[in-house]
Amino acid sequence: MKQSMEKNSVGIAILGFGVVGSGVAQVLEKNREQIWRKASTWIEVKYILDVKDLSATPCAACAVRDLDPILTDSRVDIVVETIGGVEPALEYTRRALAAGKSVVTSNKELVAEHGAQLMKLAQEKGVSYLYEASVAGGIPLLHPIKQCLGANCIQEVRGILNGTTNYILTRMFRDRLPFGDALFEAQTKGYAEADPTADVEGIDACRKICILASLVSGAHVAPASVPCEGIRSVTAADVAYAASAGYKIKLLGRALMEEDGRIRAYVAPHLLPSEDPLCCAEDVFNAVVVRGDAVGDVMFYGRGAGSLPTASAVVSDILEVLREKDMPKDVDWTVTPAKEPSANTPLLSRWYIRIPSDPEQLRQKLGQVTFLSRQGGGPEESALLTEEMDAKRLQQSLSGLGSYTAFRVLED
Amino acid sequence: MKQSMEKNSVGIAILGFGVVGSGVAQVLEKNREQIWRKASTWIEVKYILDVKDLSATPCAACAVRDLDPILTDSRVDIVVETIGGVEPALEYTRRALAAGKSVVTSNKELVAEHGAQLMKLAQEKGVSYLYEASVAGGIPLLHPIKQCLGANCIQEVRGILNGTTNYILTRMFRDRLPFGDALFEAQTKGYAEADPTADVEGIDACRKICILASLVSGAHVAPASVPCEGIRSVTAADVAYAASAGYKIKLLGRALMEEDGRIRAYVAPHLLPSEDPLCCAEDVFNAVVVRGDAVGDVMFYGRGAGSLPTASAVVSDILEVLREKDMPKDVDWTVTPAKEPSANTPLLSRWYIRIPSDPEQLRQKLGQVTFLSRQGGGPEESALLTEEMDAKRLQQSLSGLGSYTAFRVLED
Repeated sequence: MKQSMEKNSVGIAILGFGVVGSGVAQVLEKNREQIWRKASTWIEVKYILDVKDLSATPCAACAVRDLDPILTDSRVDIVVETIGGVEPALEYTRRALAAGKSVVTSNKELVAEHGAQLMKLAQEKGVSYLYEASVAGGIPLLHPIKQCLGANCIQEVRGILNGTTNYILTRMFRDRLPFGDALFEAQTKGYAEADPTADVEGIDACRKICILASLVSGAHVAPASVPCEGIRSVTAADVAYAASAGYKIKLLGRALMEEDGRIRAYVAPHLLPSEDPLCCAEDVFNAVVVRGDAVGDVMFYGRGAGSLPTASAVVSDILEVLREKDMPKDVDWTVTPAKEPSANTPLLSRWYIRIPSDPEQLRQKLGQVTFLSRQGGGPEESALLTEEMDAKRLQQSLSGLGSYTAFRVLED
Repeated sequence: MKQSMEKNSVGIAILGFGVVGSGVAQVLEKNREQIWRKASTWIEVKYILDVKDLSATPCAACAVRDLDPILTDSRVDIVVETIGGVEPALEYTRRALAAGKSVVTSNKELVAEHGAQLMKLAQEKGVSYLYEASVAGGIPLLHPIKQCLGANCIQEVRGILNGTTNYILTRMFRDRLPFGDALFEAQTKGYAEADPTADVEGIDACRKICILASLVSGAHVAPASVPCEGIRSVTAADVAYAASAGYKIKLLGRALMEEDGRIRAYVAPHLLPSEDPLCCAEDVFNAVVVRGDAVGDVMFYGRGAGSLPTASAVVSDILEVLREKDMPKDVDWTVTPAKEPSANTPLLSRWYIRIPSDPEQLRQKLGQVTFLSRQGGGPEESALLTEEMDAKRLQQSLSGLGSYTAFRVLED
């Protein structure tokens, strides 16, 4: 056994030994035999690069502070990048790919912003750049979209892509907590960071829907081009009104392919019927529906974050690198920006509106509407569901009535 | 374009031109360009073999009645077997593999019964035998388990694997229909066959859990070895009692891996909490939860049957055959029967019981229980939930009390 291990093994380096990076080492160790059966080779961690001092840990023997020894060591075939953020992850990834190493990453920000150029570099070097762990943690999603649904024209991807906001919305729904209390609880439990901006403002979900939209369209959907609304505007009153009509409020990322190849992506809170399959994702769970023209709707559900779940996706990408080693490489999307739909292809939906106006006025402005009521709701505000219309008509109808809350209602 | 088509194309033959086979031809035609982008080759249907006379259809030009021209035509690389049932599908598959053609199938009965020997033959011939469409229709499931969850030791697979019975149970739950009326409705809508035995008795679900259990354990789990209980015993009364305590009744296939590599598989109705993710699968939808030791629970949801959804899986396997063309082939499981757990490793759960006995007697026999009530329920029957116990203790406790209904309660 020992002998065959030395002869038949693949070396990896882990860049960034935080929650995900240490999970990768843990999974590789714990499921060593299982992974050997899949890969027909042993996978050995040769280097761990981190800014932290690892000299007093069991990893001391392979700890390094500098990328150079990794790049020049011919025993290292695969670099795992679990640093997060753009720099130094971008520079390290470029250098690793340029040195002929395949790179596997969980870094959604880097993939969403710079994935196209990194895939291109990987292709030029004949190596892989894989990123399954960057969206929806451990849930198999990108690979199934690429391979298993390859016979389909994908028409839409919609999903709950951020566990922190889903936890907050779940607590607001179940126990009618105000947003601030639910956020505080998420922070106490370690689900939300001290600065929760990236989660709460939808920035994290936006990166993920950009990766999905880019994958599906084959062109770069940049986060800066995607309208993004977080959950700060969702109040306990909204949750109560929605519940009164059988809806839950969920933060969704959506990417819709138009027939002409244009793609529309955005992130915003939505009202979903409680029996919608996506609503089975509560607490920190993620769920993503992919609509293909042959298969219809399929949904993928599971833990969208966490050390071992995310590591599961990273290690599966390591296995995929080994599997596709001798195949010609392709880029999943190009650096060319994706085309957005023209202004005259509106996105219709019903809307939930909460506004300090009287019902008669709203009926005049919006036509057919359904008013909602909640315990504790007073005459100073109205909440209602509209008929189908686009955002522009809604804005025009409500102009001059002061500030209001508007969320799309998503029904099939 | 024309020229490159002739130079760069792969020929396929479709055996059995029913619901699935014709769906495959339709998807290949409709999404020709999309599939070309994935495969970097055109996929051409060269032959369609069926017992029906296709001479008056658009398929006349490629219709054949005999396998021989397919086997001797070197332009045919892949055979799609969508005949269903064991014979002649088994013989045709053997002959196609022996002739060096890869085979892609949607035939769950054949894969569950004879998959191991067909994979072995494929391996010997250096070709592929793929069967994604045989379980859960269009839902990507087998490939994700094999590849995307490859870093995990799979601990359990549980799922709603039969759309017909799920439709019946959904109608019984939503509208409190008796079993017979719900079955009749399913037949009227074309979801159930005139002879509904294979669905209603759990035989279809059993084949699918056998395929999943074999894939996960690497050894053959034969349908004959798997305890299988259908839904004929589920009454409107059971559905009402379950609902009164917040449960739905679902027919589940389960495969549990023991630590020592033994595997326990069975099919039976279960009570699931309404908020269980599996309960989002209503009507004809399927959903399967896979529990991995790193990733935790992930769920796959979608249409488990139907022409185009199943064809989506078949065509994705055609793409996979092309992708893994030059890779060494492996068998997913061996002909060796899987080992079952020994009798002294009981499977514990709470149980739902409906029995014509009085509460006091039941309390004496079963200890701590929770009695349930329903509208229209009389004193002649008791319904209750037990504490955790195995099937043997339950049987012993209730012996001598006459016939009763018992379903496991599944909670995490």
